[in-house]
Amino acid sequence: MSKRRKQRKIIKKGLSPGTLVYTGEWAETPLSVVTTWWTEEDYLEKPLFSPELHEKAGVTWTDIRGLNDTNFIAAVGERFDIHPLALEDILDTQQRSKLEEYDDSLFFIIHNLRLEVEAMELASEQISIFLTRNDVLSFQEDPDDTFAGVRKRAVEKLGRLRKKGVDYLVYALIDTVVDGYYEVMNDLEGQIFEVEEMLYQLNTIAPIDIKTKVFHLKRVVNDLRRRVTPLREASTRLLRSESGLIDEANRIYFRDVVDHVAQILDALDNQREALSSLETYMQAEASNRLNNVMRLLTVISTIFIPLSFVAGVYGMNFDNMPELHWKYGYFYVLGIMLLSSLFMLAYFRKKRWI
Amino acid sequence: MSKRRKQRKIIKKGLSPGTLVYTGEWAETPLSVVTTWWTEEDYLEKPLFSPELHEKAGVTWTDIRGLNDTNFIAAVGERFDIHPLALEDILDTQQRSKLEEYDDSLFFIIHNLRLEVEAMELASEQISIFLTRNDVLSFQEDPDDTFAGVRKRAVEKLGRLRKKGVDYLVYALIDTVVDGYYEVMNDLEGQIFEVEEMLYQLNTIAPIDIKTKVFHLKRVVNDLRRRVTPLREASTRLLRSESGLIDEANRIYFRDVVDHVAQILDALDNQREALSSLETYMQAEASNRLNNVMRLLTVISTIFIPLSFVAGVYGMNFDNMPELHWKYGYFYVLGIMLLSSLFMLAYFRKKRWI
Amino acid sequence: MSKRRKQRKIIKKGLSPGTLVYTGEWAETPLSVVTTWWTEEDYLEKPLFSPELHEKAGVTWTDIRGLNDTNFIAAVGERFDIHPLALEDILDTQQRSKLEEYDDSLFFIIHNLRLEVEAMELASEQISIFLTRNDVLSFQEDPDDTFAGVRKRAVEKLGRLRKKGVDYLVYALIDTVVDGYYEVMNDLEGQIFEVEEMLYQLNTIAPIDIKTKVFHLKRVVNDLRRRVTPLREASTRLLRSESGLIDEANRIYFRDVVDHVAQILDALDNQREALSSLETYMQAEASNRLNNVMRLLTVISTIFIPLSFVAGVYGMNFDNMPELHWKYGYFYVLGIMLLSSLFMLAYFRKKRWI
Amino acid sequence: MSKRRKQRKIIKKGLSPGTLVYTGEWAETPLSVVTTWWTEEDYLEKPLFSPELHEKAGVTWTDIRGLNDTNFIAAVGERFDIHPLALEDILDTQQRSKLEEYDDSLFFIIHNLRLEVEAMELASEQISIFLTRNDVLSFQEDPDDTFAGVRKRAVEKLGRLRKKGVDYLVYALIDTVVDGYYEVMNDLEGQIFEVEEMLYQLNTIAPIDIKTKVFHLKRVVNDLRRRVTPLREASTRLLRSESGLIDEANRIYFRDVVDHVAQILDALDNQREALSSLETYMQAEASNRLNNVMRLLTVISTIFIPLSFVAGVYGMNFDNMPELHWKYGYFYVLGIMLLSSLFMLAYFRKKRWI
Amino acid sequence: MSKRRKQRKIIKKGLSPGTLVYTGEWAETPLSVVTTWWTEEDYLEKPLFSPELHEKAGVTWTDIRGLNDTNFIAAVGERFDIHPLALEDILDTQQRSKLEEYDDSLFFIIHNLRLEVEAMELASEQISIFLTRNDVLSFQEDPDDTFAGVRKRAVEKLGRLRKKGVDYLVYALIDTVVDGYYEVMNDLEGQIFEVEEMLYQLNTIAPIDIKTKVFHLKRVVNDLRRRVTPLREASTRLLRSESGLIDEANRIYFRDVVDHVAQILDALDNQREALSSLETYMQAEASNRLNNVMRLLTVISTIFIPLSFVAGVYGMNFDNMPELHWKYGYFYVLGIMLLSSLFMLAYFRKKRWI
Repeated sequence: MSKRRKQRKIIKKGLSPGTLVYTGEWAETPLSVVTTWWTEEDYLEKPLFSPELHEKAGVTWTDIRGLNDTNFIAAVGERFDIHPLALEDILDTQQRSKLEEYDDSLFFIIHNLRLEVEAMELASEQISIFLTRNDVLSFQEDPDDTFAGVRKRAVEKLGRLRKKGVDYLVYALIDTVVDGYYEVMNDLEGQIFEVEEMLYQLNTIAPIDIKTKVFHLKRVVNDLRRRVTPLREASTRLLRSESGLIDEANRIYFRDVVDHVAQILDALDNQREALSSLETYMQAEASNRLNNVMRLLTVISTIFIPLSFVAGVYGMNFDNMPELHWKYGYFYVLGIMLLSSLFMLAYFRKKRWI
Repeated sequence: MSKRRKQRKIIKKGLSPGTLVYTGEWAETPLSVVTTWWTEEDYLEKPLFSPELHEKAGVTWTDIRGLNDTNFIAAVGERFDIHPLALEDILDTQQRSKLEEYDDSLFFIIHNLRLEVEAMELASEQISIFLTRNDVLSFQEDPDDTFAGVRKRAVEKLGRLRKKGVDYLVYALIDTVVDGYYEVMNDLEGQIFEVEEMLYQLNTIAPIDIKTKVFHLKRVVNDLRRRVTPLREASTRLLRSESGLIDEANRIYFRDVVDHVAQILDALDNQREALSSLETYMQAEASNRLNNVMRLLTVISTIFIPLSFVAGVYGMNFDNMPELHWKYGYFYVLGIMLLSSLFMLAYFRKKRWI
Repeated sequence: MSKRRKQRKIIKKGLSPGTLVYTGEWAETPLSVVTTWWTEEDYLEKPLFSPELHEKAGVTWTDIRGLNDTNFIAAVGERFDIHPLALEDILDTQQRSKLEEYDDSLFFIIHNLRLEVEAMELASEQISIFLTRNDVLSFQEDPDDTFAGVRKRAVEKLGRLRKKGVDYLVYALIDTVVDGYYEVMNDLEGQIFEVEEMLYQLNTIAPIDIKTKVFHLKRVVNDLRRRVTPLREASTRLLRSESGLIDEANRIYFRDVVDHVAQILDALDNQREALSSLETYMQAEASNRLNNVMRLLTVISTIFIPLSFVAGVYGMNFDNMPELHWKYGYFYVLGIMLLSSLFMLAYFRKKRWI
Repeated sequence: MSKRRKQRKIIKKGLSPGTLVYTGEWAETPLSVVTTWWTEEDYLEKPLFSPELHEKAGVTWTDIRGLNDTNFIAAVGERFDIHPLALEDILDTQQRSKLEEYDDSLFFIIHNLRLEVEAMELASEQISIFLTRNDVLSFQEDPDDTFAGVRKRAVEKLGRLRKKGVDYLVYALIDTVVDGYYEVMNDLEGQIFEVEEMLYQLNTIAPIDIKTKVFHLKRVVNDLRRRVTPLREASTRLLRSESGLIDEANRIYFRDVVDHVAQILDALDNQREALSSLETYMQAEASNRLNNVMRLLTVISTIFIPLSFVAGVYGMNFDNMPELHWKYGYFYVLGIMLLSSLFMLAYFRKKRWI
Repeated sequence: MSKRRKQRKIIKKGLSPGTLVYTGEWAETPLSVVTTWWTEEDYLEKPLFSPELHEKAGVTWTDIRGLNDTNFIAAVGERFDIHPLALEDILDTQQRSKLEEYDDSLFFIIHNLRLEVEAMELASEQISIFLTRNDVLSFQEDPDDTFAGVRKRAVEKLGRLRKKGVDYLVYALIDTVVDGYYEVMNDLEGQIFEVEEMLYQLNTIAPIDIKTKVFHLKRVVNDLRRRVTPLREASTRLLRSESGLIDEANRIYFRDVVDHVAQILDALDNQREALSSLETYMQAEASNRLNNVMRLLTVISTIFIPLSFVAGVYGMNFDNMPELHWKYGYFYVLGIMLLSSLFMLAYFRKKRWI
């Protein structure tokens, strides 16, 4: 529980605006910079900043992992003329997904999400992408390289990456992150499926831990929804950006991202409903069970309480109780008891209680 | 259950964008191509691609069934200049209904839906329609020909099909699919009606399987709604398309499609409400029943528990219990018991419990 | 029930678009045509089509009742140049209210609604109005003449009808239908009022048939809402129509219709809430009752079960039970029983259970 | 109850449009007309229409109270060229708040609301304001003069009223009515506060009349909301009116009205939530109580029912029951009973039931 | 409770518009005025109004604390040409956050919020900011200086405050207030966390005071939401203001404020859902508990009531009861009782009730 709470914590900001503080969870990640440059023919990769690469025509992509060296980030901001507030946003990793358009550059924030099945919570890594006419900068929090696949496609000349410009690279980066959402969705599907199976197999009142799991799943689905929803707006604005940084011919790729985001939101609605349905099912099942329990109690009580009363009457010790001395008094009473309980059973049967 | 789940599965996409993979359920469908060409006077039909047909003036319609030969699909894409992302969408059959407008072509995705009554789930076949100035391409997943009726109308010169251009053909194809939705709606109506009849006839607490059926129906209705909703936008955009591919005089037909989609969404709202109403009814009925059960239990207990106590008292074995030796003690007690139970009955009658 | 279901049935449409089939309930209505012509000074009425009336300057109104003679309808369509899809809509009486604008004509669909109190359902008659520069055509399903009042106003020169043009006649027709909605609303009000009175008078748990009635009323209110909502859009579009068929000076009358529709939707919200309120009241009442029942059961059980136990103890037949032989044992026990039950009563009184 | 219903009644309208019928509740109010004229320097007030006042430059305000003399209203309409539908609206007092813009005049409908605390319902008086270039006409239903305060400000030259034109007078009239809403809000606050206090003090299950009061309060809040919501649109349209009748410099006053309406709607949301919160509280309290009741019943039953059974066993009259003849049999049994009930109590204590 | 109510109180406004009355809670705050002037090089601070400071080029900021001296406020309004309605708004501290644009000035209302944890309510201080070309006026209700941090940054030349103009100062003021919202959010998080911990640790039915706390938290979250929502619109309008008072280069700072407000609203949604989740959890837990209680009661009753009945039968005093005289009758009966209770236990075990 405490883990989940930390994630939701909101960092207090009493600082002067523009002060750079890293607020994320990967405070221990060592800084790592990779600069990659390519044209359709050539490909170069350097483990550090390489001013000469940025001079050459072609696509230059600087990938920065580890955000706790704020001085370095400040220097990068200086070098590439990134607005102080954008720098702040790179480090303050509670941002919503958004697109900021500057005179000659675009700044995009997206979140790499992963489902931590054990704790049943979303782990989020903020990824910031900065696009100028020739350069792409990407900032990752986590030491794991989310973009290894993109780099491989560049090295091995797979797909269209080497044939297209910086805007296509930005698309490839965003697409990689959005693809990760499908994995989260699949994991969620698996969890929901498991709960459903468990529930239908049990054929009994859901134990409290299944209910808790459904609550947690709902919370994750809502959390995911809240994170993906602003991405819809951000990606739509990117698609429609009039900055001149997105090539007309490549716009269709960004439309594809917008479609994927819409598809994910649809699927999330689906999951939300499946979970609501499960809740309703559990509730109906519980109320059904309570009805059955009460019915049994009532049937038993209604039959035996009057009989016990009759037995009690003939257990009284009055001197003068004529029935006690009848020869077949006992059998008469037994007979009456039998008849009355048969009558009761017939009544309950008619009322479909048993 | 497992079937339904499969349907909701989301295919993981870690692939480079533009990679063609068929993700649907009809992986075994053999490829089948039919090219049809007509003018108001002539009609030709060839079982394969016929380059010469595409040269001639008139309507050329190429219908492709079976999508697992990705090389073939890629070749078709090459031949007709279909955008790689559109090709991908043709094969990735989890798409939402949508319209993509290209420079000189339109690309429309719609889903052929059918209610599988047994499993109470929607079966969906994605149908992609590609329209250029002279050609219509349609892609079907399923070996069954959804468009047999359209072809028949072309052959037999029924209606306006032979008199109109490619845009009217696209309308005829879409209209055929949308007509299928009315069948799904009718099947759903039938199911809902059956449940209602069952429920009102039973006149008892709904057994758990009726509740389950109502849940499943609700899920199907919601599923259908989610699939038809994006079609409303797509068909409205098609109606308003400024591509020049839709003839002004034929716009009214597309408006008709938009109206039908709106009508279906209205009817779905109707069904959703009917199902909610059923749920509320079942719930009210159950709570009513519980009330009755508890009332009976309380009436019986409240009458007999005190009486049993009195009988218990006079069943005690104290040496000195004067009442026991009264001549009519037993009858006094019986009388008091009778009076108190009559009093109780009157009280409950007044409170309208019995 | 079966009646209501039929009403909701959706007609399967596997036919070629434009095929004329009447889908309504008044299949037996004989065809009846009345052509009326007037100027401010003159008035003529013929029981059939009168080509000469359509030639003369003035307002010509052709009212057609009974829609099952599809050939006749087709001929009318030919004569007045009505679009085939509009003709289809006239006959397919499950349409939503809508306005279609053609080059030189307007086509408006509205529904005449009536509350069938017995079956607690809405009866709907689709009315189609076709307006050209000089002609108004109205199509009614039902043999009863909805527009008798309008005709009377024309004959007797009441109001402004004879002074105004065809657009005012269209307004008068629509206004007549909308006025009918007020009657439906009044009937609904009456029903709701009756249920409320019944409920507050009963002062007991609502019997299941009142609940059913509330459900049905809610269904009708929702149904009505769903039918009137598209009318809001249709009438607003009519108000803003730029076809040139609506005179500027008469727009205010159509604004009046829009206002009335908005007022009806407001009143429907009102009724919906009144019904929800009733449901909540019934539910609260039922839960209140259950609480009371359980409280009584608990009070009685809690007092008498321990007492009965004590009586049971002294009814045991052990040889050695000293208390039995105490002189005042019996009275001690009775005293203790009395005290404990007084204590219990005080406890429950303090807890405000009794 | 009957009173509230009457208020919600919808007047049947089978009349020719434009027929003047007063539909309100103040049918007995005698007609009273006051014409007031002022400039910054002069002030005149006549008890009747004064044609000469309308000729003079300055602000002329004609206030008409009592709407049942439809001939008089018709004459006023003639004199000031009020559209027949506007005249109808003045008399049909079930209108929504609205603004109608005519060529050279504005027509505004607003409702004076008052909370009738006893009946817990909103009393509504429709006020119609008609603005031309030099004249303001106001129509009130009620004999009480809502605008006495405005007149006083004019007489005593308070505020800016005498310095500004007819548009400012319209603002002053509307502002007076909107101020009245704050009073309604205060009364509602008081009622809600009272119910809350009652509820928290009781510290018991809410009696049914508190629930009823909460229902009624909710109904009033919803009613008020429904009446104020159209005013938001009407006042916004008045603020943005391009009729030339509202002076640019005075627009800020109308913006103030819009702000007040928004503030009232906010406060209504607040109250709605407070009431919902109360309902949830009452419901939670009731369910909590039921739980407690059931727990007590179960504890008592679970302890004593088995004990009673044991006592019953040793109360049997079999000849051969060895335990009965043991010397300490009775005490053994008592001891076992004591132990088992202690064990039970410990178990319930552990489960936190007691 | 009474405290919270007072806060929600709506001040009755029967006064002439424009009358200045302070309606807030800090009626005792003494007036305190600080005028600060700076350029990038110089800094001056005077404890009173200093006409000469307002003449000099540079940023002049007049901060007024304590609003009960309405004459003084009126004089300030006169001096800086503040519109009478804006003056009224400064003093009427129930305003919604808003932006008013005048010809050459902007007027912005925002609220400084603080969570009073004890009373679990929001304390609100209205802050009004008035911006002209060279001057900023800020009005605070509370004697505590909310803007001490801003003044410090100006004195110590921290950040960009001294380098930028009046618009940046306005941003700094608004940003300070919005930062305070993060603190409120953190406090709320803490409270929610505490409740969650308490609830999960208890592992029992939630006592009524936890429920009450959840209700209060929900109320505060909703209250906060309602106060921040209008700020979203106000800050967006400020960002897009075309008054010429906001420098293009500084717009990005106002966009930052808009982002923060959106982030806060997101986080509030999060909290709202966490609280709803808690409620659902509590409710499910309670219903689960009730089920368990009822099951235990039913199991005990169903086993022992029939057994007691049998014991009662053999406790009857009939002369002729043959079983009583069987040698092993007692043991037979005991055996049958044992068997029947074992059977019952097996049945309940099979039904998973125990």
